[in-house]
Amino acid sequence: MTEKQRSIMRASIKLFATKGFHASSTAEIAKEAGVAEGTIFRHYKSKKDILLAVVAPVLVKFAAPFILRDIREIFNREAELSVAQIVTELYRNRLELIEANEKHVRILLQEAFFHDEIREALLSTVFRETRTLADQLINSRIEAGELRPLPSEAVFRAILSSLIGLVLFKHVTDRDGFAKRTEEEQIAITVDILLHGIANRP
Amino acid sequence: MTEKQRSIMRASIKLFATKGFHASSTAEIAKEAGVAEGTIFRHYKSKKDILLAVVAPVLVKFAAPFILRDIREIFNREAELSVAQIVTELYRNRLELIEANEKHVRILLQEAFFHDEIREALLSTVFRETRTLADQLINSRIEAGELRPLPSEAVFRAILSSLIGLVLFKHVTDRDGFAKRTEEEQIAITVDILLHGIANRP
Repeated sequence: MTEKQRSIMRASIKLFATKGFHASSTAEIAKEAGVAEGTIFRHYKSKKDILLAVVAPVLVKFAAPFILRDIREIFNREAELSVAQIVTELYRNRLELIEANEKHVRILLQEAFFHDEIREALLSTVFRETRTLADQLINSRIEAGELRPLPSEAVFRAILSSLIGLVLFKHVTDRDGFAKRTEEEQIAITVDILLHGIANRP
Repeated sequence: MTEKQRSIMRASIKLFATKGFHASSTAEIAKEAGVAEGTIFRHYKSKKDILLAVVAPVLVKFAAPFILRDIREIFNREAELSVAQIVTELYRNRLELIEANEKHVRILLQEAFFHDEIREALLSTVFRETRTLADQLINSRIEAGELRPLPSEAVFRAILSSLIGLVLFKHVTDRDGFAKRTEEEQIAITVDILLHGIANRP
């Protein structure tokens, strides 16, 4: 990738994240990137092409490998960890990842509403892969008697829902309320409620 | 509201929900509504004016009163109901409400990303009011010993997160998996996990 392409990508991420894809024009992108508008069209066929060129690498380079790397790492350490430890690790890691990539996450969520390609890419790389790996873990913990004998998809939904709740309260609905406790405490309370919900009583 | 205004609103809701606000032009809205583009500008200053005229009534007419009516109704029957019954009722009711108003919900969520007015309206009418009412209920049930002595905002987050999980799995990430059980069963499993998480052990 040339320096100009990098500028175009940086400018697009900035504009798409603040104004959204449809409200950003290629003229604005060119201005923000400090290049001529013609330069943009030499590299990308259309604005949508930039979106897919900006977003696809994010998906492939960031989201999928991150999630899979962590889940694989957990699988490697599985024997030593309780479900509570696994979930705590995952929540911590996801909150950090989102914090560090807020703009990318924003673009992904915004544009997933409108572009089937992005929604499908998110669902197939991130969601379905995670789901398959999580299912194995959940089922083995149910067999081991650590988790209650619940449908594994309901357990997965409970784990994911709690994480979404943390993200939503931290970033959108309740920043002040959330900040009354440390992030570590918020995660601990959330995991405590979740584990009471899904774990077998000792 | 005149018949023409009603057509413009219907056309806008349809286009905003499928293509999004920014990708819909007033020319398209006019064509879809079967009116001249000039007619639109006689009624609304700008496309954003339509959005706020379309979305604001939805917020005020649908979302807020619905949610508050149900919560008030629950407060009126509070003495007779367990937390499990209250949450089951709410989840059932919210899923129906979203199903019946899918387009409106879609516009609200999409545009809440971009327009502070809409995000703020959602947060202040729907979120904060619900939160205040829920806090009272949660704290009284903690005092009564029905719920574990947890921070009430964490209990509220757990209840809301489970609902968001249901909506997400039903409508977005896992339609096929969700449909393997009836909605009634999905709600029951979700409430079961939640209640194990937040209720005192008998």
